[in-house]
Amino acid sequence: MQETIKELIQYKMFKELRKYLQFKEPEDIAVALNALSHEDMILAYRLLPKEIASQVFVNLEPDFQEKLINLFSDKELKEVVNELFDDETVEIIEEMPSDVVDRILNQVDKEQRKTINKLLQYPDDSAGSMMTTEYMDFTEDMTVADALKHIREVGEDREDIYKGYILSKDKKLCGIVDAKELVLANGDTPIVNLMDESTVHIHTLDDQEEVGKLFGKYNETSLPVVDKDEHLVGIITLDDAIDVIKEEAEEDFEIMAAVTPNDDTYMKTSVLKHAKNRIIWLLILMISSAISGAIINHYENAFAAIPILVAFIPMIMDTGGNCGSQAATLIIRGLALDEIKTKDILKVLWKELRVSLGVGLILAICNGIRIYIQYKNLQLSIVVGITLILTAVMAKMLGGLLPIIAKKLKMDPAIMASPLITTIVDSASVFAFFSVAVAIMNI
Amino acid sequence: MQETIKELIQYKMFKELRKYLQFKEPEDIAVALNALSHEDMILAYRLLPKEIASQVFVNLEPDFQEKLINLFSDKELKEVVNELFDDETVEIIEEMPSDVVDRILNQVDKEQRKTINKLLQYPDDSAGSMMTTEYMDFTEDMTVADALKHIREVGEDREDIYKGYILSKDKKLCGIVDAKELVLANGDTPIVNLMDESTVHIHTLDDQEEVGKLFGKYNETSLPVVDKDEHLVGIITLDDAIDVIKEEAEEDFEIMAAVTPNDDTYMKTSVLKHAKNRIIWLLILMISSAISGAIINHYENAFAAIPILVAFIPMIMDTGGNCGSQAATLIIRGLALDEIKTKDILKVLWKELRVSLGVGLILAICNGIRIYIQYKNLQLSIVVGITLILTAVMAKMLGGLLPIIAKKLKMDPAIMASPLITTIVDSASVFAFFSVAVAIMNI
Repeated sequence: MQETIKELIQYKMFKELRKYLQFKEPEDIAVALNALSHEDMILAYRLLPKEIASQVFVNLEPDFQEKLINLFSDKELKEVVNELFDDETVEIIEEMPSDVVDRILNQVDKEQRKTINKLLQYPDDSAGSMMTTEYMDFTEDMTVADALKHIREVGEDREDIYKGYILSKDKKLCGIVDAKELVLANGDTPIVNLMDESTVHIHTLDDQEEVGKLFGKYNETSLPVVDKDEHLVGIITLDDAIDVIKEEAEEDFEIMAAVTPNDDTYMKTSVLKHAKNRIIWLLILMISSAISGAIINHYENAFAAIPILVAFIPMIMDTGGNCGSQAATLIIRGLALDEIKTKDILKVLWKELRVSLGVGLILAICNGIRIYIQYKNLQLSIVVGITLILTAVMAKMLGGLLPIIAKKLKMDPAIMASPLITTIVDSASVFAFFSVAVAIMNI
Repeated sequence: MQETIKELIQYKMFKELRKYLQFKEPEDIAVALNALSHEDMILAYRLLPKEIASQVFVNLEPDFQEKLINLFSDKELKEVVNELFDDETVEIIEEMPSDVVDRILNQVDKEQRKTINKLLQYPDDSAGSMMTTEYMDFTEDMTVADALKHIREVGEDREDIYKGYILSKDKKLCGIVDAKELVLANGDTPIVNLMDESTVHIHTLDDQEEVGKLFGKYNETSLPVVDKDEHLVGIITLDDAIDVIKEEAEEDFEIMAAVTPNDDTYMKTSVLKHAKNRIIWLLILMISSAISGAIINHYENAFAAIPILVAFIPMIMDTGGNCGSQAATLIIRGLALDEIKTKDILKVLWKELRVSLGVGLILAICNGIRIYIQYKNLQLSIVVGITLILTAVMAKMLGGLLPIIAKKLKMDPAIMASPLITTIVDSASVFAFFSVAVAIMNI
């Protein structure tokens, strides 16, 4: 698509371009525009049909949004902002420099400005900062006909009209009624008869991770957000929750690969930023592998006597690292999905102990046989075999334990993933290897 | 909650239990029931109010569902199945042994049986197997009033009534109309006037990963599924898509930790299954680390002459592994999110080359200084420094390259994650280390 847009611009076929863009989805247009040069992007954006321009705008990269806002007349800016829902405006504002923010806030009406300012006060990544205040509100005394009339009157500006929130006089949330129920019911039924009282809700200061979990669990198109006095202050819609679910998974992937999490995409991140995001962990992990080095150094006499021992260092280190990261990843995911609780710590350790004994035994047997065939050295077979079992047990116990401890200490369990586990297990497995060797081989 | 249920059962306070369950969300009840013994689960299930029983049933673990079905009378089974949407029934059937499947199919009417059998024919993980056939269908000649009347008549059985699919006479999808538009519009407006023609759609045989991506991109509550003749055959709703998005992320996490993916949760998976899911990769990876061992063995003379070299093996191996897994994880995620295409291979390599030179240089300088201070050996500083730069470059280039090659070969790029990259980079970095040492130190 971006190729077509580029070519049409190159040949100045603007009329055709306008026609071409007319039948495309705003999300796809935004992807294509994001890949263009500034000049082409602006040109193409100017040709968009008004109805979709603001939806394309929402999906553009922040630096493109900023460029466009700077080019917009006040009238144009007002048109775009008016088409956005409050939470979309807030999301854009959060990425803009202060002069652009001022311009945007000047274009919205007083009421909306108040709402936006309030939303901006919630901490980043809190439910409050994700919510929209544009929900369908009903009062307890309405009938179905009243409710439908109310939807017709104000529905245009509401982000989710498929769920109505029934409020008491003091703005407390009494319950929810589905638009489906309203459409199917008789006009003079009181809406409280259709009300579902057992409503799952979110608090304004809940973390976005919590929000993602709730949406994952309950099949709802939106969930209400209440303040500390249980007053309804907004709703979060499923589409925003999906973004959070994806974002949280991405963050975990990055942390687990020892990369500082980063909102930008791989391609958009500069080389310098990439290097910065990676170097810190590499340096930290290097310190811990220096410890393994020191342990090896300590056993210089052992491998001076039996040099073949050195050849097994990579296998023992790798196996330890892999065993540990298998356990750690499973536990980290279990914790993230709330399937494993910190109080399950003993259950986890008991399970990992049995798994690691089984796995270790198989590894020991396979390797023991291989080594015996290759080197005809039974002692070496036994040393490596015992080390593998010890390594598997240690690695899997640590892999099970450390993420749970991190969670208890209110740290992100994901930092206990592969790289950290690997370097910790390294020292332990190298130490085990040489200790066993010294003991059995009488070095 | 499961504690409360357990206690109420223990004291035979069934009336209180029934009351207690009345105000809970079905999803929460299911979580609690899944943690009970079979007997308690069955007891508690029997006490559920009818309205929520089937929703609890859908969220139970397959083995509990099977237990319950075996206890149900035909009448009870029919009641539960009638409350389910087709796609929910299909999902349950896919997990049941054939005699249970027969019983379920006997309880549904002929029309429904035909639909279910058709859905069962789509391959696992295909869009067809995820979809429901219970969508709101409109014809082109309807007015808004006709459409609303149609919703009232048949809406009860439809899974998503908030989007109406407008079909031509030959069942081709013409466009979509939002329930929001219908509610807000005048009764005698023809619905085609409100129709959105540019509809994103899915093909029945598309992979579920594709489905997840589409929902992630477009903010839609449901998407239409068409067959190869572009006839509308069903819809997929957002709640099912969320499950897929989460499932796919989980699968990637497991593959990237060298664990065979597994649908069950950590706690529910038996020790034997855990061991089985982990041992295969450990054995494969062990073979490749044996190669590193062989390389070290080859350089026996080098470390016999300068034993301190051995102490640096862990640091060089770990750094290589970490550098590689950082790059590999970022590329694997970029590929999964479609942000990186296989044709970007040269761009990725060029970026990784620059990042790795930067990162390698910093690591080399930090370590070189540390080694010089500790051992007063400039040659050793230089050997380790050069090796670290070479290792970083190799590791990051391989980490960038291998996932893209895997994708080109139609394999899952995730298998190229940390463990495999680590063991491959190990051999290369150990080889580089000793080669550099032999060359510079004149061993």
